Amino acid sequence: MKKVAIFPGSFDPFTLGHHDIVMRGVELFDEVIIAIGYNTNKSKRYFDIDLIVDKIKETYKDLPQVKVVIYSELTSSLAKKNEANFLLRGLRNTTDFEYENAIAQMNRHLNKDLETVFLITSPKYSSINSTILREVHRYGGEINEFLPYEV
Amino acid sequence: MKKVAIFPGSFDPFTLGHHDIVMRGVELFDEVIIAIGYNTNKSKRYFDIDLIVDKIKETYKDLPQVKVVIYSELTSSLAKKNEANFLLRGLRNTTDFEYENAIAQMNRHLNKDLETVFLITSPKYSSINSTILREVHRYGGEINEFLPYEV
Amino acid sequence: MKKVAIFPGSFDPFTLGHHDIVMRGVELFDEVIIAIGYNTNKSKRYFDIDLIVDKIKETYKDLPQVKVVIYSELTSSLAKKNEANFLLRGLRNTTDFEYENAIAQMNRHLNKDLETVFLITSPKYSSINSTILREVHRYGGEINEFLPYEV
Amino acid sequence: MKKVAIFPGSFDPFTLGHHDIVMRGVELFDEVIIAIGYNTNKSKRYFDIDLIVDKIKETYKDLPQVKVVIYSELTSSLAKKNEANFLLRGLRNTTDFEYENAIAQMNRHLNKDLETVFLITSPKYSSINSTILREVHRYGGEINEFLPYEV
Amino acid sequence: MKKVAIFPGSFDPFTLGHHDIVMRGVELFDEVIIAIGYNTNKSKRYFDIDLIVDKIKETYKDLPQVKVVIYSELTSSLAKKNEANFLLRGLRNTTDFEYENAIAQMNRHLNKDLETVFLITSPKYSSINSTILREVHRYGGEINEFLPYEV
Amino acid sequence: MKKVAIFPGSFDPFTLGHHDIVMRGVELFDEVIIAIGYNTNKSKRYFDIDLIVDKIKETYKDLPQVKVVIYSELTSSLAKKNEANFLLRGLRNTTDFEYENAIAQMNRHLNKDLETVFLITSPKYSSINSTILREVHRYGGEINEFLPYEV
Repeated sequence: MKKVAIFPGSFDPFTLGHHDIVMRGVELFDEVIIAIGYNTNKSKRYFDIDLIVDKIKETYKDLPQVKVVIYSELTSSLAKKNEANFLLRGLRNTTDFEYENAIAQMNRHLNKDLETVFLITSPKYSSINSTILREVHRYGGEINEFLPYEV
Repeated sequence: MKKVAIFPGSFDPFTLGHHDIVMRGVELFDEVIIAIGYNTNKSKRYFDIDLIVDKIKETYKDLPQVKVVIYSELTSSLAKKNEANFLLRGLRNTTDFEYENAIAQMNRHLNKDLETVFLITSPKYSSINSTILREVHRYGGEINEFLPYEV
Repeated sequence: MKKVAIFPGSFDPFTLGHHDIVMRGVELFDEVIIAIGYNTNKSKRYFDIDLIVDKIKETYKDLPQVKVVIYSELTSSLAKKNEANFLLRGLRNTTDFEYENAIAQMNRHLNKDLETVFLITSPKYSSINSTILREVHRYGGEINEFLPYEV
Repeated sequence: MKKVAIFPGSFDPFTLGHHDIVMRGVELFDEVIIAIGYNTNKSKRYFDIDLIVDKIKETYKDLPQVKVVIYSELTSSLAKKNEANFLLRGLRNTTDFEYENAIAQMNRHLNKDLETVFLITSPKYSSINSTILREVHRYGGEINEFLPYEV
Repeated sequence: MKKVAIFPGSFDPFTLGHHDIVMRGVELFDEVIIAIGYNTNKSKRYFDIDLIVDKIKETYKDLPQVKVVIYSELTSSLAKKNEANFLLRGLRNTTDFEYENAIAQMNRHLNKDLETVFLITSPKYSSINSTILREVHRYGGEINEFLPYEV
Repeated sequence: MKKVAIFPGSFDPFTLGHHDIVMRGVELFDEVIIAIGYNTNKSKRYFDIDLIVDKIKETYKDLPQVKVVIYSELTSSLAKKNEANFLLRGLRNTTDFEYENAIAQMNRHLNKDLETVFLITSPKYSSINSTILREVHRYGGEINEFLPYEV
C-alpha cells in the first residue's frame, strides 16, 4: 500500500525548517502532501496564500511525490479524503512537543488509522520561526536566507 | 474548619479532564466550587456559558458538595467571599506548570491564606485540551467522548 | 475520616524547601508523616540518617501532627500501613514535574486509593537542591542558611 | 571600547523583575538602554507608554548609565544606531528560554556583532509576570509591591 | 527499497510502552529490529538479558518482520550492518525530547543516511518508566500489568 | 576594574560548543579562565586531564586573555581567589536551564558579588554533548569534527 503523509501547517511563510522536514519525509513516505490550513473567518495571513502555494510548487517542481493543497476542514478529514495514514510533523523544541502531543492524540481519536510521525528539525534550522520571520519582514528586514525561495 | 476549594477556569468546554480533577478533589476537600471566569469585555466564548453551567449542574446533581458559579473578579476575591482557603488546579504537562506557578504565587500575594493545590490529570485525559476541542467542534467533529455530558 | 499524608524523600539533607512544603501541608492534612526512604544496599547517604531524624523531630516538636519515619519498602505499602490516602510532594520546576508524574501514576496503580497532592515550593526556596547542598558542604561551604536547623 | 547593551521589552508594566536585571546589567555593561518596543498598529498597551517612561527615568535618576528609549523598528537596527553590541535579557523559566533562543539567533543573523547576554532573574522575582499584573490591576488589585515605583 | 528500522534501548525491562511503539512502527516500516544495547563493562542489568530476549521473541512470534538482537557497538554501526536507514524512538515527554535530539544529531553525523523517526507513546502508557518498574519489582510489587508478557 | 569570568566545567572533553562560548566570552570579558573541576575521589575522567589542558592551551595560544586552570574547591572560592566577579555558562536547552539556575543561585549565595552570565550556544553546536562524545569515542567512533583540536 502506498504510504501517504500529510504535512499540515499555516506556512506563513514556508521556511527552510519546513523544507528540511519535507526533504526527510520523502525518504520515508511515497507521497508528501503539504497542506496549508486556511480559515477565512479567523486571523488574517501575512503572506498571500496563493504566493506561498506558487513558491512551494516551484520549490518541489522536480519532486512529483510532493504536493501542495489548501484546506479548511479537520486535518483528520483531509487525511481520509487523500487516503493518507500519516501526519508528518517537525519538532524543534520542547514547547512544540507538548502541543503536538495533544494534537496527535486528538487526530488519532478522530481517525484511528492516522499515525503522527515526528522528525527533528536540523539544528541549523531549529530556531527558524514563522512568527519571528513575519515580524522581521514587516519592519523591512531581509528574510530570504531562511526560505527555500525568495520573497 | 470546613475545607473549601475553588476550581477556577474558563471551561469552554468543561471536559473529562476537568471532571477527573473534581472527582479527586472531593476526596480531599469538603466542598469544591467550580468557578467559571467570565469577562464580558474580552474574547467571546465558543460554548454558551449558561449551557455549560447547566451541564455541570447535571453532572454533579448527586454530589451536593460540588457547586458551580460564574465570576468576573479576581479569583483571590472570589475565594475570600466564599471562605475558601484553597485553589484546586489540574496539571497536565510542563507547559501548564510554569504558568500555574506564576498564577499561584500571585494569588498567595493577593490573599496570603490562599494555597493552590495541584492534582495531576490521569494519563488517559492528559491530552484533552479545550482549545483543540473547540476547533474540532467548529469543523463538525464529534467531541462527546471527551466530555462528561453531551453537547 | 482523618486525612493522613505521607511526605516521602531521601532528605539528604532535609531543607527549608522541604520545611516549606510540610508547613503548607499541615493546613491541608490532619497528619503529615515525613518518610525517609532508606536502602541499605544502595548508594550511601552523605548525612547520617539518625542525625536528620533528630533534627526533623526537633524542628516539629511543637507540631504533634508532624511525624517522621524511616522506611525501606514501597511508598504505597507504607501508606497502606499508616492508613494514609495521600502523598504530599513539592514541585519546584518542570524537571521535577515529569518524574513526579510517572511516580504518581505508579503509586496510584499500586494502591488505587492513594492520591498524590502537589504544592508549589515558594520562589525563595525553589532553587534549594539537596544534591548541590551536599556538594557545597563536602567542600566546606556554609549551608545552614538553607536548613530549618543547623548542621 | 564602551560596552553598551540594549534591554528590549514592552514593559507593560516595567516590574521589579526587570529592575533586578537592569541592576545586574550595570555591573556588566558601561551603558544599559531600556528600549520599549512600541507599535502603533498593533495591540494596545494597558499602561500608558509615557507614564512608564517617566517612572523608569525616575527609578534610575541617579544612574546616568541607564537610559530609556521608545522604538518601533527592528531591535537589531536600534542596536546598530546606538553602537550597542549586546542585548540584555532576563530568563525566568524554561518557557522563556526557547522563545529567547529563537529571537537571539535571529538577531545575530540580522546583525552579526550583536550578542545576547542572559542573566537569571532572582528567585523572589521570578514569578512576576507583566500579563498577570495587568489582569490584577484591571480588577482593582494592588500591584505596587511588584514594581520599583508606584502606579 | 526495503525500509528497515532499528528500535534501540536497554529494555530493562521491555514494557507496554515499548510494545506500543513497535506495533505502530510495523505500520510504517517493512522491518523493525529491537536492538538491546549491552555493555559487559558497565552498570549491571536488573532483568537477565536472555530472559528479555525470549519474552520479546514470544511477544512477536506472529510478526516475522519484528526481530530482536543484542549489540555492543555504536547504534550507527549496527544500522549500517543491517542496512537500516531509520532509527525508531518513542517520545513520552519533554525530558525525553532533549536527550533524544542530541542522540539523533550524533547518529546522523556518524551515518548520514540514518534518520531518526519519533512516534509518541499512547497517553495510557506514557508514564511507564523502566527505572520505576525495576524499583517496584525489587520491593516485591506487581508489574505484569505494565508488560506485554509476564515475569 | 578588569572584568574576569570563570568558565567552569569538567570538559571531558572540551568541545566546539565550549569553544563557541569562550570565543563569545572574550568579546564581553577582559579575561576568561577555563576552570576544569577535578575531584580525585569521585568518578574517573575518560580523557586525561593533562591532555585536555594541553589541547586547550594550544587552542588559545594566540589569545592571552584566555587561561586554563584545574581546581578542586568550590567554584565560588576559585572566583574569589582570582578576583573574578562573573561565571560564564553556555545554555543549550531547557534541561540545562533548570540545573544552571539552581547552581547560579547557590553561587550567588556563597559569594554575593558573583554574577552568572549565560550565552546561548550556536544552533550548529547545540547538540554536542560531552557524555555522548565519550560514548562514541569508547566504541571507536570519530569525534574530531566536534572538537577545536584533534584527539
